[in-house]
Amino acid sequence: MKIVRYLDSGSPEWGCVSQESVFRLGGDPLNNPKRGEMAGPLKSVKLLAPCRPGKIIALGINYPGATGLTETMTEPLVFLKPGTSASGPYDDIVSPFPGKEVWGESELALVIGANNTILGYTAANDVSADNVEGWDHHLARSKAADTFCPLGPWIDTEYSPANRIIEGFQNGELVRRGNSNDRLWQDGQTVAWLSTWMTLEPWDVILTGAPTRVVPRRYLKEGDQFVVRIEGLGELRNRFRERRLQ
Amino acid sequence: MKIVRYLDSGSPEWGCVSQESVFRLGGDPLNNPKRGEMAGPLKSVKLLAPCRPGKIIALGINYPGATGLTETMTEPLVFLKPGTSASGPYDDIVSPFPGKEVWGESELALVIGANNTILGYTAANDVSADNVEGWDHHLARSKAADTFCPLGPWIDTEYSPANRIIEGFQNGELVRRGNSNDRLWQDGQTVAWLSTWMTLEPWDVILTGAPTRVVPRRYLKEGDQFVVRIEGLGELRNRFRERRLQ
Repeated sequence: MKIVRYLDSGSPEWGCVSQESVFRLGGDPLNNPKRGEMAGPLKSVKLLAPCRPGKIIALGINYPGATGLTETMTEPLVFLKPGTSASGPYDDIVSPFPGKEVWGESELALVIGANNTILGYTAANDVSADNVEGWDHHLARSKAADTFCPLGPWIDTEYSPANRIIEGFQNGELVRRGNSNDRLWQDGQTVAWLSTWMTLEPWDVILTGAPTRVVPRRYLKEGDQFVVRIEGLGELRNRFRERRLQ
Repeated sequence: MKIVRYLDSGSPEWGCVSQESVFRLGGDPLNNPKRGEMAGPLKSVKLLAPCRPGKIIALGINYPGATGLTETMTEPLVFLKPGTSASGPYDDIVSPFPGKEVWGESELALVIGANNTILGYTAANDVSADNVEGWDHHLARSKAADTFCPLGPWIDTEYSPANRIIEGFQNGELVRRGNSNDRLWQDGQTVAWLSTWMTLEPWDVILTGAPTRVVPRRYLKEGDQFVVRIEGLGELRNRFRERRLQ
């Protein structure tokens, strides 16, 4: 099942996607959800982030060649994005940091279900801004702004993450590319390891790392489009703009 | 009003504290809560963290003399702790990182209410572990483990944060001390600034920074007690232990 959230008369609703249409979701979306009546054609329905994560945990270094990778590394690097940074699959990325360089990263993400299970998979864009004044080495502010984590278009509960191509495009130019099999930590291992030191909750999202760049870093300019494409799963398409202070 | 959460027959309940007793809370705890019937004497009631934060935002450098402070600093340094790291005012701090150095930091914290208001104040312990293998410069893992953010004992909605002594004690020895007035960023300014780049939600918690150490850093050993004492507000008392893997 492809679980979505969508806007219905101004309120978020659970739904699922089938045959290019959005249907309402009956029952608990975590346990045995059922397809209900049709809400509308997929193209006419406003999709939201497919869940509202309590927290978003991101693996910083999970592909060969990633910046910071060392031969002695025995554990992934982890950082956090708040649930409030999540946004919809076609929403604008709005930078609140005028004049700061901002870039996108294409990532395969998993969504936690009940009891530390993997409910399913979704695409994610780990949007990041240049470190504040060069000294925000914690990268918290750089990655935590509203709209800095587009997710979607759906949570595919039947998706197999094996041997999938993960790509990022900026204005149509391929900027990142990798294969999910090349990840240093695979999903079951990641979830098990995280669970040894933090409680994972339903709807928490784990970003499994960005594949390496295939061109030098491109920064986002007003009106640029960043596309995250994950083989067999779906696509995010987000425009970038800077928020102008009044 | 001093808002608490407490355990009642295994379930968390909202309450308030008055005259050394815990009372049930009637109405919405965010808007015009009312004191209900007595639940029990304060000493016999198991207090939980006084809220379950969506996110915990911490200011890294907010006192004169703090590590990393520069004369050119125009903004505070920010990092995140997940809501799942919150724990009760007298709960054990349990490190899941055997053999890693762990320490406590005493902080005055504020709790967000409706519409970006400050609902009230509470005490916080920003527990931190040594960086993983020396390369977790993001400090996310170091600060995000379950139990690494004791909060409480209550949210005091009538507390004035002006000119208050903030202290940390390890096994009775004073290890940190500062005055809230010395903070570089005061609370209204902090909330307004954070709101320019991230949505703050009710029950989000903001840790306003640790005052500087008055002795060299002390690491926590099995059974040690760390006390956070905030003048006029209350005290956290947490024992430290390492979780032994089976």
